[in-house]
Amino acid sequence: MARITGRLPQGGAVLLGPGDDAALVSAPDGRVVVTTDLLIEGRHFRRDWSSGYEIGRKAAAQNLADVVAMGADPTGIVVGLGLPPEAATDWLDDLTDGFRDECDLVGASVVGGDVTRCDLVVVAVTALGDLGGRAPVTRAGARPGDVVAVTGRLGHAAAGLALLHGGRTEPVGLIDAHRRPQPPYARGPQAAALGATSMLDVSDGLLQDLGHVARASGVGIMLAPEAFAVPPLMEEAARLLGADPLEWVLSGGDDHALAATFPEGVRLPPEWTVVGQVVEGDDVQVRGRSPERGGWDHFRK
Amino acid sequence: MARITGRLPQGGAVLLGPGDDAALVSAPDGRVVVTTDLLIEGRHFRRDWSSGYEIGRKAAAQNLADVVAMGADPTGIVVGLGLPPEAATDWLDDLTDGFRDECDLVGASVVGGDVTRCDLVVVAVTALGDLGGRAPVTRAGARPGDVVAVTGRLGHAAAGLALLHGGRTEPVGLIDAHRRPQPPYARGPQAAALGATSMLDVSDGLLQDLGHVARASGVGIMLAPEAFAVPPLMEEAARLLGADPLEWVLSGGDDHALAATFPEGVRLPPEWTVVGQVVEGDDVQVRGRSPERGGWDHFRK
Repeated sequence: MARITGRLPQGGAVLLGPGDDAALVSAPDGRVVVTTDLLIEGRHFRRDWSSGYEIGRKAAAQNLADVVAMGADPTGIVVGLGLPPEAATDWLDDLTDGFRDECDLVGASVVGGDVTRCDLVVVAVTALGDLGGRAPVTRAGARPGDVVAVTGRLGHAAAGLALLHGGRTEPVGLIDAHRRPQPPYARGPQAAALGATSMLDVSDGLLQDLGHVARASGVGIMLAPEAFAVPPLMEEAARLLGADPLEWVLSGGDDHALAATFPEGVRLPPEWTVVGQVVEGDDVQVRGRSPERGGWDHFRK
Repeated sequence: MARITGRLPQGGAVLLGPGDDAALVSAPDGRVVVTTDLLIEGRHFRRDWSSGYEIGRKAAAQNLADVVAMGADPTGIVVGLGLPPEAATDWLDDLTDGFRDECDLVGASVVGGDVTRCDLVVVAVTALGDLGGRAPVTRAGARPGDVVAVTGRLGHAAAGLALLHGGRTEPVGLIDAHRRPQPPYARGPQAAALGATSMLDVSDGLLQDLGHVARASGVGIMLAPEAFAVPPLMEEAARLLGADPLEWVLSGGDDHALAATFPEGVRLPPEWTVVGQVVEGDDVQVRGRSPERGGWDHFRK
């Protein structure tokens, strides 16, 4: 552990860092947000497709995105690592640096962990956050009439993964998006302050994730397909692979964009794009798109 | 997840339970204790030696023990599960019940989790706790003159594991101790209230773990071997296997006893046994026992 902890500066929220039975983290709000994700080699990442550093950043990112999606500010993460012998050296250093640098983006720290031998790489991350007196923004508060808005990238990681599966190494911008998501961290607390009625991070694809909001809130959601701009890089990738780029945008996960609903009439900053509306109902529909089209069924999984 | 969460009642500290991007747990102290451990099938448990229920209890127990070893009261755990298909059914229900029942012993709840497919069972538990205004009891506060005391079982789990490795099915009491540790949870906060100067849970063996205290506190520790009573069941197991029972007591882990140091003259309740003294120095010694004897070197690992 000394190898790891020596690479990990401790931020202001850390009252007791790695090295004891447990860490101690500031929770000034009197409540603590907590979320966990388990990443398994071969299922969530491949060491020949991503570096240790990229895997560390991605594992931290997906948990930190869950924290900001509640409207909270991340404070710290703990990591459980299962490592084969050959990964317990420089590769581990890179992984650790990835955790650290991703946490650094949001002012959080790696406050503790556990390392054990395993035949394949296992990365378990738990992230904590503080609400700063705000109410948590759950999936359950959307109301008919609310607008649906997104911020961050959609479909980039899915396009990158499709390119890798197709044996491609370009466009690099999309492949990098698979290797290292860039969640729009600051916009989680921002959305909470703007009065978001529901929010989540897009990890399984927008249609599927908005399905969670629809179910939890007891509403329907109608999306406007023309609101989704398909960037030129993605058009290019879709041509290369013979794919439908809107399918990546609507059903691709792993970019960790944020999707939220806001009261009608809210003035949203330009980094948020309105993509639809909350309606009476119980499912997610894309206007003009038949339910039989790809992407539609995904959210029922 | 519905299969799991339906089995999990949520206690009073849980402000938002499973089902959203993150959970929300009360942290009235304004600080939160956090610890994590990763258990890998074949390394930390075997499904032919322990039931899913026992593995769930054990995985929760070892994290809850880390929380109480800081002097804190556990509030909640989150679990990351990697499961082969055949374990994602009744076995998962049993595992979940094990988490729940162990948490129930300390008034904590399973507040969230993540389940993914994996070729072997992986159990990642993170536990949270609240200090209730107390200072955390770290490993670093022992001072020469302090007494060293332990509470809970020592060496039982190691004897049970040795019996299983030896193909034995008895004594059942010891084998059960391997399958399901029984940490003395209430005595962690009790020790903090009694003024413990250092504390940890005994997970790697008493000598090795007290070595952590010696290093962190910059002290030596002298143990009195006669203070350790070897119970009859353990004598019997040692005879069966031709083993030294004191070796299990001094070097066996996984019982999650608590070891603490207290100021000289403290009046300890009877559930604590004084086993030695903090001295000037930098290592752990057992009076009358040569450093070459088993157990001595373990703590240097």
